[in-house]
Amino acid sequence: MTAVLDTESQPFPLVIRRLGIDSHQEPVVYLRRNSHICRAEGFATASRVQVSSEQHSIIASLHIIDSNILSPGEIGLSESAYTGLKTDEGHIVHVCHPSPIHSLSALRHKVYGHTLDDQQMSDIIDDIVAGHYSDVHLATFITACAGDNLNQQEIISLTRAMLEAGDRLDWQKEMVVDKHCVGGLPGNRTTPIVVSIVTACGAIMPKTSSRAITSPAGTADTMSTMTEVELEPDVLKQVVNQEGGCLAWGGSVHLSPADDILIKAERELDLDSEGQMVASVLSKKIAAGSSHVLIDIPVGPTAKVRSQEAADLLSQLLITTGQALGLTVEVICTDGSQPVGRGIGPALEARDIIRVLKNQPDAPEDLRHRALVLAGHILEMAGIAEEKQGFALAEKTLMTGRAWQKFYNICQVQGGFREPAVASYQYTWHSPVSGTIAEIDNRNLAKLAKLAGAPEDLSAGVTLEVKLKQAIRAGDPLLEIHAESPGALNYAVEFLNSRTEIIKIQS
Amino acid sequence: MTAVLDTESQPFPLVIRRLGIDSHQEPVVYLRRNSHICRAEGFATASRVQVSSEQHSIIASLHIIDSNILSPGEIGLSESAYTGLKTDEGHIVHVCHPSPIHSLSALRHKVYGHTLDDQQMSDIIDDIVAGHYSDVHLATFITACAGDNLNQQEIISLTRAMLEAGDRLDWQKEMVVDKHCVGGLPGNRTTPIVVSIVTACGAIMPKTSSRAITSPAGTADTMSTMTEVELEPDVLKQVVNQEGGCLAWGGSVHLSPADDILIKAERELDLDSEGQMVASVLSKKIAAGSSHVLIDIPVGPTAKVRSQEAADLLSQLLITTGQALGLTVEVICTDGSQPVGRGIGPALEARDIIRVLKNQPDAPEDLRHRALVLAGHILEMAGIAEEKQGFALAEKTLMTGRAWQKFYNICQVQGGFREPAVASYQYTWHSPVSGTIAEIDNRNLAKLAKLAGAPEDLSAGVTLEVKLKQAIRAGDPLLEIHAESPGALNYAVEFLNSRTEIIKIQS
Repeated sequence: MTAVLDTESQPFPLVIRRLGIDSHQEPVVYLRRNSHICRAEGFATASRVQVSSEQHSIIASLHIIDSNILSPGEIGLSESAYTGLKTDEGHIVHVCHPSPIHSLSALRHKVYGHTLDDQQMSDIIDDIVAGHYSDVHLATFITACAGDNLNQQEIISLTRAMLEAGDRLDWQKEMVVDKHCVGGLPGNRTTPIVVSIVTACGAIMPKTSSRAITSPAGTADTMSTMTEVELEPDVLKQVVNQEGGCLAWGGSVHLSPADDILIKAERELDLDSEGQMVASVLSKKIAAGSSHVLIDIPVGPTAKVRSQEAADLLSQLLITTGQALGLTVEVICTDGSQPVGRGIGPALEARDIIRVLKNQPDAPEDLRHRALVLAGHILEMAGIAEEKQGFALAEKTLMTGRAWQKFYNICQVQGGFREPAVASYQYTWHSPVSGTIAEIDNRNLAKLAKLAGAPEDLSAGVTLEVKLKQAIRAGDPLLEIHAESPGALNYAVEFLNSRTEIIKIQS
Repeated sequence: MTAVLDTESQPFPLVIRRLGIDSHQEPVVYLRRNSHICRAEGFATASRVQVSSEQHSIIASLHIIDSNILSPGEIGLSESAYTGLKTDEGHIVHVCHPSPIHSLSALRHKVYGHTLDDQQMSDIIDDIVAGHYSDVHLATFITACAGDNLNQQEIISLTRAMLEAGDRLDWQKEMVVDKHCVGGLPGNRTTPIVVSIVTACGAIMPKTSSRAITSPAGTADTMSTMTEVELEPDVLKQVVNQEGGCLAWGGSVHLSPADDILIKAERELDLDSEGQMVASVLSKKIAAGSSHVLIDIPVGPTAKVRSQEAADLLSQLLITTGQALGLTVEVICTDGSQPVGRGIGPALEARDIIRVLKNQPDAPEDLRHRALVLAGHILEMAGIAEEKQGFALAEKTLMTGRAWQKFYNICQVQGGFREPAVASYQYTWHSPVSGTIAEIDNRNLAKLAKLAGAPEDLSAGVTLEVKLKQAIRAGDPLLEIHAESPGALNYAVEFLNSRTEIIKIQS
């Protein structure tokens, strides 16, 4: 028998049932095993299906239901599937096999060690943004691009593809400045201070930041403890037009949306690749309408960048890639040997920022000094300060309270300033011996803060009570763990007990 | 405040609720967002949790429930989570944060392009077998090992690690033979014929096969259409002791269990790496107790191995790795320019096998000839036939019906012989022109069979009605698609219509 096929008809309308299952980023849909559609379409479990409402269409993972959670004729949706379809419970959708994902052959090409061209890279990024990639495909792409698997030309292709897959802002100004820190240094939260200083001096700095990738806090996480950061494009523009700057999350304005998807997957893998880092940073900056960017690379034995050679290589990639896409990039290498400020975690870092901006006596001097150096550099880059006069102008702006006033105003326009929250559970680690602080392990300190719940739990993290070379006595506090639940606190304390070399004391 | 921590107590017993959700390989558990445990432990959605019953413990993905699917105090389990915990509905389990997965640092090491030693490889494989890796971690491992990313020493380490992570069979015989085809050639299902011939001649050939990785059928899939292939170790031994051979699935006897997990993940990615292929093949052979293995590498422009150089390289890897682990490997390169037999898909290939074994007039001559060559080679390797006399002995064994009788007996002892099923939906592709068959694209033909539902749908696939260089007339059938549902048939027909160059005709 030869079957009569009619691709136009959609014979199995399904009624949406919102199951209230939070499956995180990856959308999941649920169908009864014995449903007509499963039999007719030959859906195997865990296969991917395309679900279409009148207006929207998503690709989702399929879980098969053997119980009575669903009634006949219903399709269950996880929260991310429900959000993606932009429809309501009780409405009708249709399900079919998704078209083959064409960019997977390019992905396999990369996995087998070949070089991707502009078109292949852009096909992959377009499929990622369209939601065609499963978590497993994303992991494969990230892994295939990790280490030094991308050459300079591929990094340019990736940056351009990520840029073109999203919106671009245009500020109608010749000089729009920005800064970025490649991370790896816990507590290095200079951005809100720098933005406040340079915009108070008249620079245009529409700062959009990312959430944490593998660190306990990103600038967007920290800012979200003090104001709204998920701004609609119109609001963002209004804030910048009014204040000269903003401190927003980049993802909500659809700038380089591929970056946000890749970052979430990288977080689960705790992987960070050089090429993707460059593409991520620069695509966001160009999309945000910047003309000049200062990039801060902290260098230290346990920082993300561990040697001056690695820093030089990364600088070169950043500058060359920027050039190819019309962006002026300057790089500054800073001391990455120990954490900056006291707090590690969104709210704890926010507290340090407020102390600096308000010129409080307990403001961390290292954070203050780094912010002034960066702000001074940007003021010179923007032609607002003469050469070598930037630091002095930045310091004056901070000391007179104009920086705090500007920060407060930006927060107010973004949705209102609020004090960062305080965690309910603390554990203090006291030094068992007297001596001098010899080493601080940034990587394991960051891990400790994450085990305590940062960045998802905004008030969780670690406060470091000592600095390198500081003399201490037995019983002095070394650090404090903050958590929002006893379970998370317990988890972090157990880790600390197994890694007491996290702070080395020379007695 | 400093929290009082008690790691001994498990304050939140949870009652198991089997939700009847089939989440495929990866276990998923469900908890209410407002449950005490979620608040106390600070579980974020999509994080991984450890679930422990009295006897067993698994690591699972956590989905958070916002609706009333669960009652307070309940934990929902997907089917794979339920199976893994080996307990019953209504019983009590406890949930906690899993210990950090130590081998992830070795995995990252590999991702960044470094070499893994024995210990690191074995840590990774042990974690995989223990179920500690999520699908995303598995994808990362597979990708990091793909292409030529593993050196010879790493391939030996991986093979040894996979071998040691499972059971080993010991047949108490000096000479135990086996064969393997590296695949890539649709329909090349010689194994059941070869096993029947050589065991009929007195060789010991306890054949365990894998299911399909990226092809439309593996030998285990094909055999499962005719008899039981999931045999308990005791049954397997009994079959071999009685008949001298078996035709079983390797996974059910816990030989190289890592291989079965990796194969499932590779299937989703449609990735196959040389190093992993070598480790997969040889770890299974050694674990199955083989002393001598013949490996068939089909070479052709659209086969898995495309050139003689690639075949030579792979041969060398197989021989050297085998040597390091005490296994004698011989390699035979065969013609891989076109599919073997008529059927592509489990049941369709089974039909070809039966025709050959029964000496039926419509038996595919190419399949018959290949099987005789391989069987002859093994008979010589085992010292049963003199040099160059193997083929003649194999042919005699087939022609006299002793091979069919042996095959039937093996099936009967494994659980009974049955005829393979027939699919309900067919579509015949007729040639639009007259001419000669110039090219057949193995890769896209395999893809077509998979889109029709193979290997999950056992009777689905493709039957090829023509061979290379055959003369045909307009209207002659070129191939037939078989499917178990109209949806799957439709999907395959759409693909065929977009790839009519799958069979090229010179007119």
